[in-house]
Amino acid sequence: RIDGARLWASLMEMARIGATPAGGCNRQALTDEDKQGRDLFLQWCRDIGCDIRIDRMGNIFARRAGADPEMPPVMTGSHLDTQPTGGKFDGVYGVLAGLEVLRTLEEGGIETRAPLEVVVWTNEEGARFSPAMIGSGVWAGEFSLEYGHGRADKSGATIGAELERIGYLGEEAAEPKPVTAAFETHIEQGPILEKQDQLIGVVTGVQGIRWYDVTFRGTPCHAGPTPMADRRDPVQALAWLCERLYSEVKAYSDDARMTCGDLRAEPGSRNTVPEKVVLALDLRHPKPEGLEHLHRTLYRLAEQVEEATGATIDVREEWHSPPVEFDEGCIEAVDSAVQKLGYSHRRMVSGAGHDSVYVSRVAPVSMIFVPCAGGLSHNEAESAEPDHLEAGCNVLLQAMLDRAGV
Amino acid sequence: RIDGARLWASLMEMARIGATPAGGCNRQALTDEDKQGRDLFLQWCRDIGCDIRIDRMGNIFARRAGADPEMPPVMTGSHLDTQPTGGKFDGVYGVLAGLEVLRTLEEGGIETRAPLEVVVWTNEEGARFSPAMIGSGVWAGEFSLEYGHGRADKSGATIGAELERIGYLGEEAAEPKPVTAAFETHIEQGPILEKQDQLIGVVTGVQGIRWYDVTFRGTPCHAGPTPMADRRDPVQALAWLCERLYSEVKAYSDDARMTCGDLRAEPGSRNTVPEKVVLALDLRHPKPEGLEHLHRTLYRLAEQVEEATGATIDVREEWHSPPVEFDEGCIEAVDSAVQKLGYSHRRMVSGAGHDSVYVSRVAPVSMIFVPCAGGLSHNEAESAEPDHLEAGCNVLLQAMLDRAGV
Ligand SMILES: NC(=O)NCCC(=O)O
Ligand SMILES: NC(=O)NCCC(=O)O
Repeated sequence: RIDGARLWASLMEMARIGATPAGGCNRQALTDEDKQGRDLFLQWCRDIGCDIRIDRMGNIFARRAGADPEMPPVMTGSHLDTQPTGGKFDGVYGVLAGLEVLRTLEEGGIETRAPLEVVVWTNEEGARFSPAMIGSGVWAGEFSLEYGHGRADKSGATIGAELERIGYLGEEAAEPKPVTAAFETHIEQGPILEKQDQLIGVVTGVQGIRWYDVTFRGTPCHAGPTPMADRRDPVQALAWLCERLYSEVKAYSDDARMTCGDLRAEPGSRNTVPEKVVLALDLRHPKPEGLEHLHRTLYRLAEQVEEATGATIDVREEWHSPPVEFDEGCIEAVDSAVQKLGYSHRRMVSGAGHDSVYVSRVAPVSMIFVPCAGGLSHNEAESAEPDHLEAGCNVLLQAMLDRAGV
Repeated sequence: RIDGARLWASLMEMARIGATPAGGCNRQALTDEDKQGRDLFLQWCRDIGCDIRIDRMGNIFARRAGADPEMPPVMTGSHLDTQPTGGKFDGVYGVLAGLEVLRTLEEGGIETRAPLEVVVWTNEEGARFSPAMIGSGVWAGEFSLEYGHGRADKSGATIGAELERIGYLGEEAAEPKPVTAAFETHIEQGPILEKQDQLIGVVTGVQGIRWYDVTFRGTPCHAGPTPMADRRDPVQALAWLCERLYSEVKAYSDDARMTCGDLRAEPGSRNTVPEKVVLALDLRHPKPEGLEHLHRTLYRLAEQVEEATGATIDVREEWHSPPVEFDEGCIEAVDSAVQKLGYSHRRMVSGAGHDSVYVSRVAPVSMIFVPCAGGLSHNEAESAEPDHLEAGCNVLLQAMLDRAGV
């Protein structure tokens, strides 16, 4: 059994880095705060004698040796970066639960057959740099290293330059090596476990995600003398498109999701019709055909609204992460760990994207969810029970030992 | 007659300050570019021997003495600040037409009875600091000096601090002195004169304007796992409100105007439902009861959308400039100048706000409009014909001489 109090203490210590007044964390990818978080994690890993490697995407691999050096590692891990107004648990829990597993084995003097690795993946959130999960994505071969290094934040700073700046541009190639199995613990970030009063989510896969930059362009003109009929107003087009897309997405199925996370108007002067408005849009559905339907709905409405308003609408797809099904063997390893520990549980599909999505392209993977209060995440008030976090970490320990052998 | 070529040359020289690659100007109020523009104007005024005063709001008064020192001045002027993506003529024309009148009189050795004053009003655009016309507004007693100095831009810099920084915090009290009459030349910024092929607009008044900051607040949550039904999404509320307000404003009357000039989402991360969205809204109507109707429509819809979406909507009025009617005597002075010069013309109400709105509270005022291409303004492509600008300036010269006496 792992030490729940130690896990909690480490979570709280990490949460001090980038702590916000409202009780959350702002530790966005590759900022000074992210560097501090990484440094602290490395210190903790060195304290228990781990071997550390860092790759060209800044992904950190902390390894505890196994008895059989020929056997590929059993991996776990997640991310330390947060949303700008994020919580204390999203991602961090998955990293520190992995660390807690290593600490427990070290303390108990237990040797596994396979080596165990705890991984910190770079820029999972996709908040500072789009897309999400780019560290694991490059590692797994979904994106080229060049693409990864070139991604820029709103100020134009790139991942490559920021990795170098904070000293986390490692030497190892960012490419997959053989992996025996991989697990990732995470808070659910949704309301299902809490509503159904269940302790563990045995995650069978992840829903599909598509990201878009939707640019509405009009003709800047004066707010006063210009007749409404003479205008090409990008805000009118935005309002119209969003209003319809929300209705159609909601009407399509309870499983469909639509989020307008960011809006920016240029030049952004109250008495000038903007020249352009950019909308950062996120569409999701657990089924490929469902996601395809939402995608086509977006393009159809954009065309209609263009025609109706005279504004031009450019829909550029930023990212497409199709629905993923995890490895049946790993799902069963989690299932039997949960049974053995006697925890209430259910199988479920993740609504959020996770590094496991890309890791699952090159290795057998599954995930372990624990409840979070009110299903709230990407919010400074994000909260989880110490007991639940402890239980999830115990499941992780059992599943990793199951696959690594003792 | 004024010298049209000299007027045009001065306009083009001023347009170099803050010139944008697309051929417009970005010389926002109290920036380094505004300072350069003011410095150039002062140089030009000193070259013809004007007496210069600057008040506590940075308004510049350049005076050419008259024969009768007891007689209050005949004023003209406008502003040198521009929109972030503004043109070469909006405001600047009114200032440099005034200068051209003084140059013409100086050159001809003509002495007027009343002194003549050319004024540069601070922050007319309202683009960097809200509200618009604040320099003339404080001078005319509409706003307190404290209010004026305290207005802040998006970065938090205040008018008071920026005046000091660029060296234009003058000594004179920003309060009205007696004025015999005031005129302001301006491009129309709308399509009427051009469409009707008329050279001069004799401006009888200015339509009413109300500005609002509309803040939509929701609950930030994760774009993936959070069911649509559980969300309080401020963007949905924004889309809904705007969609309905556009329809109602357009249906109400051809004279009604609605502009959504700026939009800002926080925290602005694609996979997080925003906590808040702020909309900078501008509503206009030439009649007080029309503007009141739009105002009440906004509040009614905000309440409905709040109820329908669960988001909260805070409508805060930033500014209210009721419809204004100019002085009949000054209107007639312009009218007879136009007749005398034989220019085609029509009476009209201004769709844009102007410093004359506030000046008209304490002095007899009217305005002179000339056409601009396609009615386009607040746009880098803003354009006006040298001949038209010359004609408007000749009207100004005649109207000023009419009131000042020779
Ligand atoms: N787990 C998590 O918050 N991932 C961010 C990527 C996403 O938007 O799903
Ligand atoms: N003339 C002009 O562009 N004024 C700005 C104030 C307004 O929005 O009407």
